[in-house]
Amino acid sequence: MQIGMIGLGRMGANMVWRLAAAGHHSVAYARHAETVNAVLREGVTGASSLEDLVAKLETPRVLWLMVPAGAVDSTLDILKPLLSPGDIIIDGGNSHYHDDIRRSAQLKEQQLHYVDVGTSGGTHGLTRGYCLMIGGEPDVVKHLEPIFSTLAPGHDAATPTPGRDKPGSSAEQGFLHCGPNGAGHFVKMVHNGIEYGIMAAYAEGLNILRHANIGKQEQEVDAETTPLRHPEHYQYDLDLGEISELWRRGSVISSWLLDLTADALLKDPHLDAYAGRVSDSGEGRWTIAAAIDEGVPVPVLSNALFERFSSRGNAEFAGKVLSAMRAGFGGHAEKPHKTGNA
Amino acid sequence: MQIGMIGLGRMGANMVWRLAAAGHHSVAYARHAETVNAVLREGVTGASSLEDLVAKLETPRVLWLMVPAGAVDSTLDILKPLLSPGDIIIDGGNSHYHDDIRRSAQLKEQQLHYVDVGTSGGTHGLTRGYCLMIGGEPDVVKHLEPIFSTLAPGHDAATPTPGRDKPGSSAEQGFLHCGPNGAGHFVKMVHNGIEYGIMAAYAEGLNILRHANIGKQEQEVDAETTPLRHPEHYQYDLDLGEISELWRRGSVISSWLLDLTADALLKDPHLDAYAGRVSDSGEGRWTIAAAIDEGVPVPVLSNALFERFSSRGNAEFAGKVLSAMRAGFGGHAEKPHKTGNA
Amino acid sequence: MQIGMIGLGRMGANMVWRLAAAGHHSVAYARHAETVNAVLREGVTGASSLEDLVAKLETPRVLWLMVPAGAVDSTLDILKPLLSPGDIIIDGGNSHYHDDIRRSAQLKEQQLHYVDVGTSGGTHGLTRGYCLMIGGEPDVVKHLEPIFSTLAPGHDAATPTPGRDKPGSSAEQGFLHCGPNGAGHFVKMVHNGIEYGIMAAYAEGLNILRHANIGKQEQEVDAETTPLRHPEHYQYDLDLGEISELWRRGSVISSWLLDLTADALLKDPHLDAYAGRVSDSGEGRWTIAAAIDEGVPVPVLSNALFERFSSRGNAEFAGKVLSAMRAGFGGHAEKPHKTGNA
Amino acid sequence: MQIGMIGLGRMGANMVWRLAAAGHHSVAYARHAETVNAVLREGVTGASSLEDLVAKLETPRVLWLMVPAGAVDSTLDILKPLLSPGDIIIDGGNSHYHDDIRRSAQLKEQQLHYVDVGTSGGTHGLTRGYCLMIGGEPDVVKHLEPIFSTLAPGHDAATPTPGRDKPGSSAEQGFLHCGPNGAGHFVKMVHNGIEYGIMAAYAEGLNILRHANIGKQEQEVDAETTPLRHPEHYQYDLDLGEISELWRRGSVISSWLLDLTADALLKDPHLDAYAGRVSDSGEGRWTIAAAIDEGVPVPVLSNALFERFSSRGNAEFAGKVLSAMRAGFGGHAEKPHKTGNA
Repeated sequence: MQIGMIGLGRMGANMVWRLAAAGHHSVAYARHAETVNAVLREGVTGASSLEDLVAKLETPRVLWLMVPAGAVDSTLDILKPLLSPGDIIIDGGNSHYHDDIRRSAQLKEQQLHYVDVGTSGGTHGLTRGYCLMIGGEPDVVKHLEPIFSTLAPGHDAATPTPGRDKPGSSAEQGFLHCGPNGAGHFVKMVHNGIEYGIMAAYAEGLNILRHANIGKQEQEVDAETTPLRHPEHYQYDLDLGEISELWRRGSVISSWLLDLTADALLKDPHLDAYAGRVSDSGEGRWTIAAAIDEGVPVPVLSNALFERFSSRGNAEFAGKVLSAMRAGFGGHAEKPHKTGNA
Repeated sequence: MQIGMIGLGRMGANMVWRLAAAGHHSVAYARHAETVNAVLREGVTGASSLEDLVAKLETPRVLWLMVPAGAVDSTLDILKPLLSPGDIIIDGGNSHYHDDIRRSAQLKEQQLHYVDVGTSGGTHGLTRGYCLMIGGEPDVVKHLEPIFSTLAPGHDAATPTPGRDKPGSSAEQGFLHCGPNGAGHFVKMVHNGIEYGIMAAYAEGLNILRHANIGKQEQEVDAETTPLRHPEHYQYDLDLGEISELWRRGSVISSWLLDLTADALLKDPHLDAYAGRVSDSGEGRWTIAAAIDEGVPVPVLSNALFERFSSRGNAEFAGKVLSAMRAGFGGHAEKPHKTGNA
Repeated sequence: MQIGMIGLGRMGANMVWRLAAAGHHSVAYARHAETVNAVLREGVTGASSLEDLVAKLETPRVLWLMVPAGAVDSTLDILKPLLSPGDIIIDGGNSHYHDDIRRSAQLKEQQLHYVDVGTSGGTHGLTRGYCLMIGGEPDVVKHLEPIFSTLAPGHDAATPTPGRDKPGSSAEQGFLHCGPNGAGHFVKMVHNGIEYGIMAAYAEGLNILRHANIGKQEQEVDAETTPLRHPEHYQYDLDLGEISELWRRGSVISSWLLDLTADALLKDPHLDAYAGRVSDSGEGRWTIAAAIDEGVPVPVLSNALFERFSSRGNAEFAGKVLSAMRAGFGGHAEKPHKTGNA
Repeated sequence: MQIGMIGLGRMGANMVWRLAAAGHHSVAYARHAETVNAVLREGVTGASSLEDLVAKLETPRVLWLMVPAGAVDSTLDILKPLLSPGDIIIDGGNSHYHDDIRRSAQLKEQQLHYVDVGTSGGTHGLTRGYCLMIGGEPDVVKHLEPIFSTLAPGHDAATPTPGRDKPGSSAEQGFLHCGPNGAGHFVKMVHNGIEYGIMAAYAEGLNILRHANIGKQEQEVDAETTPLRHPEHYQYDLDLGEISELWRRGSVISSWLLDLTADALLKDPHLDAYAGRVSDSGEGRWTIAAAIDEGVPVPVLSNALFERFSSRGNAEFAGKVLSAMRAGFGGHAEKPHKTGNA
């Protein structure tokens, strides 16, 4: 199948290569010619402009956008006058599903089809394949199956679920038509919300393990500090790298994220390479907003997000307010900065 | 009534003065003679040692301990051989109620009475009076009522609750026999847990108000950062001092803690005097532990505590784990340190 | 000053009466004639329709809308053709501040002024006055001061903040021009978010107190249940009504919300009149959404909201997922329904 | 190697069989003779009493306790007089690590060795093997390696961590000597705390997906209910079984717990077999207590626990307090019980 790929970053480049390896043909475009040149190989043709890309595609065209969410609308504005009725635009990036709903309605007026594809797999997708969550019109999604099944990890990427007998289920191959437009990015959004929660669970747990020797530290004795009642309970110097490696085998919490954690702790046991300022890239926020609209309680997912906010210093003013109140009612002064359980 | 006061910090000193002003007589002891000298006035006699203090009290003696929680047991060890059956020891500090249960049983073997008194009111208690939460034997607590009713704020400290007709209720005067030993500090512990939650509610809310102009800031555009979808919604430069003053009148959230906040923001509008590293002094922790023992969900009270932990940098390693995972699956690099919504 | 009041529910009716008592004149309208008739008194004239109301007001007209948030836009649609340039519309209800921004821009095209007023005080406002948080054009807000200062609680509603010397500050009277349109409802929104947090702090704390006798209950011994390690620590039968009355005097957590709690527990000690299904009316949700847009961590405010969602059964499916997982990895069966710490 | 197994429930029975299959010999004891008879096979001998079991073991004896945590101390009381210096007692159950510290000190007085082994793997351990987290004296743990390496899942249970080159590391086989006594159960405790967090992340996310069609439901319009501002954003009927199957392939959140979830949703798409009342069995609680002692913030792990408490109705009284306050300040009545986003 022929596809036009717009955006050749980490994800886009790997995708055209994975498609090429399976015999699909891509016309690839990025803003910088050297980026385009870097992806060329058998099955991958370059385009010098969006006009050039459109011209090189047979109708009905299939265009896959793999650009930052903030660049989708401006790209669509350029593309729309170039396209013909029946052409299909796929947004494989991290768009907000609200935008999918809006865009698909607008493109429909021009008889253009829109498909939103939430894509998980990160930098490992070239070899592992991508988990694809898809929203759009049923027949359009059906038409694109050759591409989706190539990009997806395939049936053998996981052990079969016992008793499952759903021939034709694409979920077992790693792609799924989730529902109408927006459904793909909605499911991907929640997927990322869950990811935040799982990551936070490991991070908090490892933090507890790391401080399991706190009873060995000298305790301050003053009215501002809670003394540790039982220092004898916190005398453990634990090897987090070995423990995370251990948990990968036979434990209830084994997972791919744990594999990555064991890998990171092997290479950098104290994670000195990181300051601990954690970014968030949108889906976690949108997940909470959707949950609130639905009236669904999400204390775990939201706290996972808030920990990231706090890691970047965004709780600072709240802390000042608390210290000011404590000074007000109890004459408590802030303690000087010190690492540890002050 | 005569009382021996051991410990003459902020709280102990104010208490003997409040007692003296009502005609009670205190024998006051602290480790440093100058501290003792500083509290002397009519109705307040000094003691040069615990032995001296005990000698100066009539039996059955009433001793009030107002020392750091960590110093109670060692003080009791000294006192026990000096006391006589029927004497009463009051712990008015911030002891863990588990210790009350243990101590009262031990003292009982020696026919000594123990009373635990959770005390709220902070540095303002001299004039406002102290809210007293009391645990102990009924007749012993009854015997001490003259002291409690003097230390308490009194009936007029609050408007009457409509329809309340409980003559003899000491709660309306600001002291209460809550139950057997430990009950006083248990109720005080939960009181402080609630206090943490209320303080955090104000602090978080004011933090939202403070960042209400975030739409005026230049937004970064990169794959790591969520762009603000509607900068036009965040164009407000709010005056937190005026707003907290405003809320003191007629709003649902007026409270003494809000009064203190308005006061602090008046004097230091950006709270520059504080770094935002917030201490916690035990009761908040014990409250969560009790809730968990009881199986009672306390997401608000526990998060209020955890925000304090985080404000002191204790989440740092968890942040490093998160950043390491993100690097692992998505090749995400940490962003350099910058203030704001990075 | 003359004002047209649209909407005569709890809030609107009390407002026209409070205005009338201070010599202002209101023209009052509600959909049902009997509602209008019920508010008539000296200083309050009735209107039979919005047309009638508009006709009875002198220009520049001042109209105060006190209708459900969902009815504001439709009311504005009717009013707009009836009004004249320079007229002022006040939305005193619980509108989302996004709507204020949109509406004020639309009305401005017609040279109409819009003022958003967040109003706190509930059913007690008639006597206590209303705390007013105001957004709009400075001169328009200035023009309305006679009304605001009448509705507000006034200077004496709170003790003066020590050292405060800001003559002309309206915050000390209980109303404040917070900023441009939307600022009033924004500040009110956050106010309510804080209110949710404070309420939850009391509720969680009282729940801990209520279960302080759990050690007296028989403990189940099976593999599914965590035994209570120290039943002797949970032997307290606490009187929540007396404790909440107690805390009203001299404690750090005294507040108006605590006054209401003491009142409720006096009349119904076990709160049997309530099932514990707690509604939320929007502002709490919007507060979290704003915090997330700003990147401000709000674990306490959000958990307070989520507890309300859960109280209405909205976490049920999540619980089913957890039980299904537990059955999957450990063969754990759900325990039959029982009250208490199962 | 020879081992005495005490307790033949799900876990103990599978363990002796797994040991027997590898050529180890077990003497097995349980309170009921039929339970003992049911596990007998080549390599497994039965014992009729603890005395009988002890008599059948060669010295230095190795005894593995696989009994409920509440039964360990009473079993030890019986065993202690029967054992000889140098014998080893392993507690493979879910003991609190505080108890390990206490017990190991007590047994040491009698020259008995104690080893605590946290065991993960649940009912699947017979075939998958058990992840073993071990605390105790180094030489004693070393002595037991033949048993541990048999029970553990083995090297091939996970893909190798790239770049890992630690010959002799037992973590890669699935067992680890974590530290002195208590360290095994400490690490297992935190493991379970993490497990709670991960499970909650999936559960919350799936709950959001399940309610993604809320915009199709009729909305109530009253002052108590927040109307859904954009029903058009919630029109998705999502197939959770297919989505969880999908995520098993190539997504960042693939894990064994997700495998179990997909399995459960395949068999019971709406999980009608469960009421959603979720038990907790101790480790989650102890994890939070340890974190609080250490001053480590754990909002995600604690909220995962609290959701279980709430699922069992334990937040009910808190909800009543909230409803009572709302009635107090706003005259709000509780809404009648209804499913959904009331």
